[in-house]
This record gives sequence, C-alpha cells and structure tokens, in this order.
Amino acid sequence: MEKFIRVNMTDLTISEKQAPAKYRYLGGRALTSQIILDEVIPNCEPLGEFNKLVIAPGLLGGTTLSSSGRISIGAKSPLTGGIKESNGGGNTAQKLAKMGFKAIIVEGLAENDKFLLVIEKTGAHLVPAGDCASLGTYKLVEKLRETYHGKAGIIAIGPAGEMSLAAAGITNTDKDGNPSRYCGRGGLGAVMGSKGLKAIILDDRNVDNVNYDNESEFKRLASELNKNLQDNNVVKTYRKYGTPAILDLVQELGGLPTKNFSQGKFDRADKISGEAMYDTIIARGGKGKPSHSCMPGCLIGCSSIYPDSNGEVLVAPLEYETIGLMGSNLVIDDLDAIARMNYLCNDYGLDTIEIGAALGVAMQAGLAEFGDSKAAEQMVREIGKGTVLGRMFGSGAAIVGKIMGITRVPTVKGQAMPAYDPRAVKGNGVTYATSPMGADHTSGNCIRGKNPHSPEGQVDLSANSQKMMAAYDSLGLCVFVGAAFNSQLEKVEQLVATKAGKEAIESFLEFGEAVLKSERKFNQLAGLSCKDDRLPEYMKYEKLGPNNLVFDVSDGELDSVGYL
Amino acid sequence: MEKFIRVNMTDLTISEKQAPAKYRYLGGRALTSQIILDEVIPNCEPLGEFNKLVIAPGLLGGTTLSSSGRISIGAKSPLTGGIKESNGGGNTAQKLAKMGFKAIIVEGLAENDKFLLVIEKTGAHLVPAGDCASLGTYKLVEKLRETYHGKAGIIAIGPAGEMSLAAAGITNTDKDGNPSRYCGRGGLGAVMGSKGLKAIILDDRNVDNVNYDNESEFKRLASELNKNLQDNNVVKTYRKYGTPAILDLVQELGGLPTKNFSQGKFDRADKISGEAMYDTIIARGGKGKPSHSCMPGCLIGCSSIYPDSNGEVLVAPLEYETIGLMGSNLVIDDLDAIARMNYLCNDYGLDTIEIGAALGVAMQAGLAEFGDSKAAEQMVREIGKGTVLGRMFGSGAAIVGKIMGITRVPTVKGQAMPAYDPRAVKGNGVTYATSPMGADHTSGNCIRGKNPHSPEGQVDLSANSQKMMAAYDSLGLCVFVGAAFNSQLEKVEQLVATKAGKEAIESFLEFGEAVLKSERKFNQLAGLSCKDDRLPEYMKYEKLGPNNLVFDVSDGELDSVGYL
Repeated sequence: MEKFIRVNMTDLTISEKQAPAKYRYLGGRALTSQIILDEVIPNCEPLGEFNKLVIAPGLLGGTTLSSSGRISIGAKSPLTGGIKESNGGGNTAQKLAKMGFKAIIVEGLAENDKFLLVIEKTGAHLVPAGDCASLGTYKLVEKLRETYHGKAGIIAIGPAGEMSLAAAGITNTDKDGNPSRYCGRGGLGAVMGSKGLKAIILDDRNVDNVNYDNESEFKRLASELNKNLQDNNVVKTYRKYGTPAILDLVQELGGLPTKNFSQGKFDRADKISGEAMYDTIIARGGKGKPSHSCMPGCLIGCSSIYPDSNGEVLVAPLEYETIGLMGSNLVIDDLDAIARMNYLCNDYGLDTIEIGAALGVAMQAGLAEFGDSKAAEQMVREIGKGTVLGRMFGSGAAIVGKIMGITRVPTVKGQAMPAYDPRAVKGNGVTYATSPMGADHTSGNCIRGKNPHSPEGQVDLSANSQKMMAAYDSLGLCVFVGAAFNSQLEKVEQLVATKAGKEAIESFLEFGEAVLKSERKFNQLAGLSCKDDRLPEYMKYEKLGPNNLVFDVSDGELDSVGYL
Repeated sequence: MEKFIRVNMTDLTISEKQAPAKYRYLGGRALTSQIILDEVIPNCEPLGEFNKLVIAPGLLGGTTLSSSGRISIGAKSPLTGGIKESNGGGNTAQKLAKMGFKAIIVEGLAENDKFLLVIEKTGAHLVPAGDCASLGTYKLVEKLRETYHGKAGIIAIGPAGEMSLAAAGITNTDKDGNPSRYCGRGGLGAVMGSKGLKAIILDDRNVDNVNYDNESEFKRLASELNKNLQDNNVVKTYRKYGTPAILDLVQELGGLPTKNFSQGKFDRADKISGEAMYDTIIARGGKGKPSHSCMPGCLIGCSSIYPDSNGEVLVAPLEYETIGLMGSNLVIDDLDAIARMNYLCNDYGLDTIEIGAALGVAMQAGLAEFGDSKAAEQMVREIGKGTVLGRMFGSGAAIVGKIMGITRVPTVKGQAMPAYDPRAVKGNGVTYATSPMGADHTSGNCIRGKNPHSPEGQVDLSANSQKMMAAYDSLGLCVFVGAAFNSQLEKVEQLVATKAGKEAIESFLEFGEAVLKSERKFNQLAGLSCKDDRLPEYMKYEKLGPNNLVFDVSDGELDSVGYL
C-alpha cells in the first residue's frame, strides 16, 4: 500500500490515505508535476495559501538499484512563475519509499508560527519548531538528530527559505547525515518557508514497505544494471573527479561562464578543475574524500568531501555548477574560497547556481570587483544576516539586474543559468529556453552532444534529452546512470515493470514526454507562453569569446520544442 | 506638414521626415502605441537597444481648445513588460505641435555617454549632457533655461531614470517652467535613461506650424466647448480644491488606501483632504495658490502650488494620488511631509504612486513604522543617493515585495495601484486588471460610477471608460474635460474633423477602442495574456474594512474586456 500524506498548515491537520489509483504508475517528478497540475491553481501566488509543496520519491525509490534514491520536490515556483520540480540526492527518498509514502503534499499557510513535521512508524505529527526556527541547516540537523533519531532523514530549509527568498532551496541529509543534498532550484525553499514548515524528520526505523510486482526478477535485473554502471568509464571519471570532471570540457568548448557570462574561457581554469580539486583533496588528506556517495547503495560516488588545509571538512560536496558560477563566473580561482561560499549557501539554505549568478550581476554593477573573493564571501554573508542587500542577492540574478540597472543577466524565466554558456553549448541553450523549469541543465544536459557550437540539430538533441531526464527524474534515478543505461533502456523498462507492474511504462521516452506535457500545460494555464521560451536578448547579439559565438538557434526552432 | 523626428542614440544621428500617411489621423497615445506596435520587437528587453521611446502631442495639440496640450510618451515598459503610454501635462506638447512635430522617436542606446536633444527652429541636434548629467530635475531645468532659452519647454529625467529604476518617470515643464508635470508611470524614465538621453529642450520661438482643415470653424467650436468647460460644476470643484477634491468621496466609499491597502478609511483623512489643502494654502498665502494651470490656456486649473509655512513653494502641484499613496497609505496625516516627499520624487524623477506603494510594502515588511513620516522621507532620500536600499524602493512595489517576502502587494502587471482600493471601487479594479497599461486609474477611472461596491455592471463601466480615456489621450485632452465634454461627444468629433480633416474620426468611442486593440495586440505579442489581467490574489480573499469588501468581479468577466 502506497500512501499520500497530506499536511494542511492552515489548520495543522494531517491525513494519510492510499494514493488514488490514477497516480499508481507515477513517481518522482511525474508525480509531483501531475499533482500540481491537478491541484494547484495555476495563476496562484507562489508564496500564498493556494500553492502546494509536493515531495515524492521516484518510482524505483527504496530499491536495490543503484542511484535510485533521488527525491523530487515540486511546487509552483516563486522564481519562474511556472511549475517546478527540483531534484536532489541524499537519503530522504529512500526513507520515504521504505515507509510506504508515495508523496507528501503540504498545503495552506501557518500564520507566523513555524513547525516541524515528524514522520515515524506510528504516524505523522506537527510540532512547533521552537529553537529550531531560524537555525542554519548544519546546526538544525545536528539538533534534530539529537532530539529525534541519530539516523533520521531530514528535509529542511535554512534562514533563506524562512525569509521567503526566491533563491532558497530545500536540503536533504545524505547517508552520513550531512544536510547538503539540495533540491536547490526554483525557490522551493521559499515555498516551504511560506508554509511555516522548517523541517521534515523521517524516522524509518523498523519499516520496509517497498513492494515489488516481481521481486526476484527485479533484483536480478537491478544487479545486472548495477554491474554495468560500476564498470562504465564515464562513471569511473565521475567517481574519481566528481562533477568538476566536466570543467575541462566546458572550458575547451569555450562555454565556461566567466566574468558574468562575458567570456567562455577562464585563464586560470586549471586552478579550479576536477583535477585540481582531486589533487588538493588527496594532498590535504584528513577527512577529505575525492569520491563519496550521497545515498546508500550508490555505485557512482560522484560527490566529494573537500577538506581545508588541516584536513577538516570545509564543504561536502563541492560540485561543478558551484565552481562554475562562484568561481570562473566571478573570476575567482581559489577553490577554498569557493568552498567557503558553498558552505555558507548550504547553511543558509541557498541555491549556489542562483547566488553565483546574482553575485556576477552585482559585480558587473560595481558592488564588488570581479576576482575579489573576500568581497564575494561577504556578499553571501549579507544574505545570512537578512539585510536588504543580502535579501537582494538572495532574490536571485534577475532581481539584482533589475535593481542595479543591468540587462546582461543570464536567466530564463527568471532563473539563473548553470555553468554552460548557451552560446557555446547550444543544446543546453535550447534546454534553458524551452524547459518548463527555466534555465536548468538537469532538465536536458547536452554537453556531450556533437557540434555544440553549431545551431544545427540542437533542438532535437535537447528535446530528446529533456524527455530522458524527465523519465529518469520520475524513476528517482540520478542522471549519471545515463552513461550506462541510455544504451539499454529496454532493460530499464523491464525493471520498472517488475517493480510497479507491467502497465507502468511502455516506452521510456514517452514516459518522459508525458511528464513534460503536464508541465507545459500547467505553465500555459499559469500564463507562460512561447514568448517565455527565450534566452536573454544580449546572448543573441553579444559575441562570446574566444570563439565569437552568439546564440543563433531561431525562435521558430525553439517553439518547435514546446509549442508546435 | 507634420514631421517625425527620429533620433538614433547608437550612432547619434537625427532625421526629420514627413510622417507617413498611415499616421495622419493619429496623435498622442494612438500614435505612440501604433508606432510601438509597428516598430518595437514585442519581446525585446525594455532597457535594451531595440526598445524605442516615442513622444507625441495629441491630435489637438497646439490649438486653442482648453486642456488640449497633454503629451503622450510611450515605449515598452520595464515595469509591466507590456506597452506603455504615460500621459502628462505641461507645455511641451503644445511646443512640439507648434514646431510641426507629430512625434519624436528615440532609438538605440548611447554607450555610457549622456546627451541632450535640442530642438529649435533651425533644426535638432544632440549635445553632450556634460554638467547636466546626474542633476535633479529642478537644477537641471534651471540650468538648461539659462543655457538655452528662458521659456524653453523641457522634457527630462532625473537621477532615477539615469539609474534605470523602474519607478522613474519623465517630467515636463509647466507653463512657468516648473519641471513637475510627470509622465510618471511605467518606468519610462528608465527607458529614456537607458538610451542616454537626459533631456529634450524645445525652443519654439517664432514658430507656429499648427495647421487646420477649417480654422475658423475649429475656433468657433473650440470656443463653445471652452465655455461649457469653464462653467461646469465638477470643473469648478477641481479648480478650487484640485485633484484632492476627490479624497472625501473615496474615503466615503471606503476605498482610500490606508496602511498598505489594508483598510479603506483613514481616521485622519480630514487632515489631508482637498479642503484641508485649500485651507492651508489660503492661510499660508505667499506663493501658494489653490488653483493653477499646468499648460497655457487651460481653463480647469486643477493644479496647486503648495507653500510652506513661510509662503515659499514647497511643491507644485500636490495631487490626490500622491496624497493617497504617500499619505493615508503610509498612515501619514501631515500634508507638509507628503509635499516634501513629493518634491524629492519630482527632483529625483520618480513616480509618486509607485514610490508610495513601494514604501507601504516596505513598512509592512518592518523597514519603518507606519505613520513615521521622517522615516518615510529618509527612505525616499535613499533613492536619490542611489544606495541599494534606495534602488530597491525605486524599482517599485512589486520588487520590494519580492525581496522582503511580502505577498500583499497592490500591483497589476508589476505596476502599483493608484489611490482607489479596487475592492471598494470595483470599476477601477476592472480597469487595473484589464488595462493594457497595468494598474492605472487614468486608463479608465470609474470613481463616479454607480454602486462601486457591487460587482455588477463594473465591466461595462470600465470598458467604456477605457475607450473614452484612450480617445482623450490620443487627442491630447486632459481627462477632466470629460465632465463637460462627455455629454457632447458629437461636438468633439466635429472639432477633430475641423482640425485634422473629415476622415479623422468617425466615432469617439471607436477611435478609443482602436487604440486599445493595438495596445492589446502588442501585449499579446510580448507574451502577456488574460492571466496577467488579474488583481493580486489577496484582494479576492482579504476583506477590506470597514465595508468588508473583496474584489469579486469574476475572471471570466475580466476576460470579456480584453480577451473575448
């Protein structure tokens, strides 16, 4: 039996009910997006009482398949005004799935007060947040694990979410209890904060309600897929260097965001590359680890634990997107400085992509010099203090641009671009423009596609990748499994059938396409249109050095992805 | 011969050419909106090189008809993302018309530099702004009148426009050279600033190129209409008390914005009413005047010169909307304090409606106490200083709400509401929601309509008023002539025929309707839809005291105005 747990923050009631039959074959992003389409007034105020926050493990969550424990969190986004699914790692989806929950749906608004939602074997209840209110995520989780259970999974927001900042994310504990696996994008932390919900504590001791249509066959197939994953060469690279492995390629393509997306190569890229990070971690030793799994059972291990010069943890993990946006984009070549800003963002509960982009715009406006890492760190600290200046940064790049009179702002639908300049990685440009999520690489990363400088073929590449990603996000699978699984999708389809039943999935791609259709439908009902499927104007005209590229995929081609 | 003067700020070229035949019968708002629809890429960046600023006198500009010298300034708005026409008084439209100009079209962007556009009998030229850059409007105009001619008409921006702030307006000199007749709304000052144009100097000495189809008949009809206007009772009230005459009525209806639009009556309304202002002006004497005409030949004289306790000018004029937004909306009952803030806004080049609303939201967020006029004045001064805090206020109410986490923000399409709470004045609510301009009373004020508390009939009332206003705005006529002219529109139609030719206008209402259609078409091409024709969510649910009203005109009815 798989249940929905519905939490009404207005009257502080909770109900647990069997999920309606129509949602049986949906999980993760497919489920959060469908519930939002079905239940959320598209034109509602994102931080108002009619928005809902939906949290769901993927369809394969809680199983023995590697990397299947991603969590989907969805709502109408205060940043984009459209539907959002933000996807994170950690241990929370596995715990939810094991406890037999298909989704948590948080509704209404608590007047001023803040609460914790505790879910345990005996049931779920809300308790006043008390001393936990306003805590940074690190102290918060430490305190909650003391109060509740040392191995509880925790979904939480930091002060940024409580301040309703549009760059606020929602964090999840990893397998070691480190609260740094972010559903970072789209300002969902602000939605959770607006509802008065500070954290969700998942105590799954002595519960395992994961059901299989054919358990033995599932385990056989999962074991086969796991082995393929383990042996894959791309996966091995990620295991060694983590996501920063990609930096060299992006630099080579001239698409590494540098100086607020004004250059595509950073002359000191070697200081912040995957190799540089690996070497530093190895040299410093101590608690540092170049490879680390965010969720139990993951065979990829793309995460890292980045130590300071004494071998103590500085931040974990340190990811490529953070390095691109807070490093090269700010002309900062110091991994330690980037790691410190990353730690602060994690603690305050912020999306590092959005904040890195916001600081880039602020630097262009003259609020600090590019390359001044101390000033950048100070700007991040302002957000934690909740000053108006800090709140501006925490509201994202688009708002900083509006206030500071800067039109060179790398956003789509109000959301900042990840660390691939779309003029040099045009497939990603198509994804940024046309994804229902706003600028987001995880919606359809095309970095490994052919001829990324040419506008030819990018629409098909992105459209296909968007469908694939929507399917992976719905199964709860990490996108990195694609390196091994994309070539054997029929096996993944079989696996889903042995877990959820034969009718669950016919075609992997169609499964993903259906999710995108629901999401686009919501966005259209919310007032978004093909006019919102555009990159910022300057990227069509300002040439990106050193390859002198502009974004030249035509509007008509972009519209063919979502609106024809 | 009526000409277009086209100024390209990118290459600093100017051309004067006869206006194309298709624009022959268009003037004012009809002309600015049509040129924008024809020439501006709807989806362009409002502060980028593809937006255009269009300035046009009305079709009756420069004539002897009273109150016919309103100026229309249009562009794509950085505040609403849609088309904008902002309409102002003063002497600039009359001068443009007399010089034979149908429109000034400002295109492109000047790199960093700032310029003045000088238009005189011998031609037009751009000169570097030099010391004029960054000046407040009062010093600026004083300096320009010294440099050029003591009676030159001036269209200018203050520092707010130069900072690209979305609440920046464009000011026009009045007949005495006071630069306080604002095309205030929609952030057009930021558009002018983005183009690097600080001011336009109009020296119309020894020129009078106003042409008539039938001059004698025009003068006969104009004289008849002028007399009706002079004798009209509503007009007499405006002449005595100015626009604040309306305050008592709005208070009576329970629609006076109080405490960030949370109450509809202000318990100290009598201290800021039209009568209070009149009594103060009379009692203080000196340079104060309860009645004053902003343009030569105006028989209404709704403006005022508000003196300080020594009889020196504190600000001129002091208008109802400013009193509502910076007075009751901030729980401030001190006309002097309101006048000081008004003066600062005029000097910095800001829309007092947008700033009053922004401060209301900021006070709700706790940045100052409601009723603290010193703090409010200090907040306005921050804008002049160009601090991040000030820039936030100067970016308007919607942005302040986003940064400060406040969802009770009285805006439509990002633009702040004027001083009529739409829950108590529902016709204005329909106008705010459905006007292509965003929340704007001048697009269709229904304050004198029947049963303003009832949702019944408001759609028809507003739709009709919007057509009327679009027509008046296109003729260059002040809306206040409506009190006398609305009952004799056939005479106005005849008058237009004697000025511009028999084919100029068939029906006054259809003339206005055509303008609205062009504007809605632009907005749709820019990505706006019926989903943007909505009031803020809270106004549908939060009851406005003391009459416990919500805005209950249905979405379907709203859509019938623009989208059926």
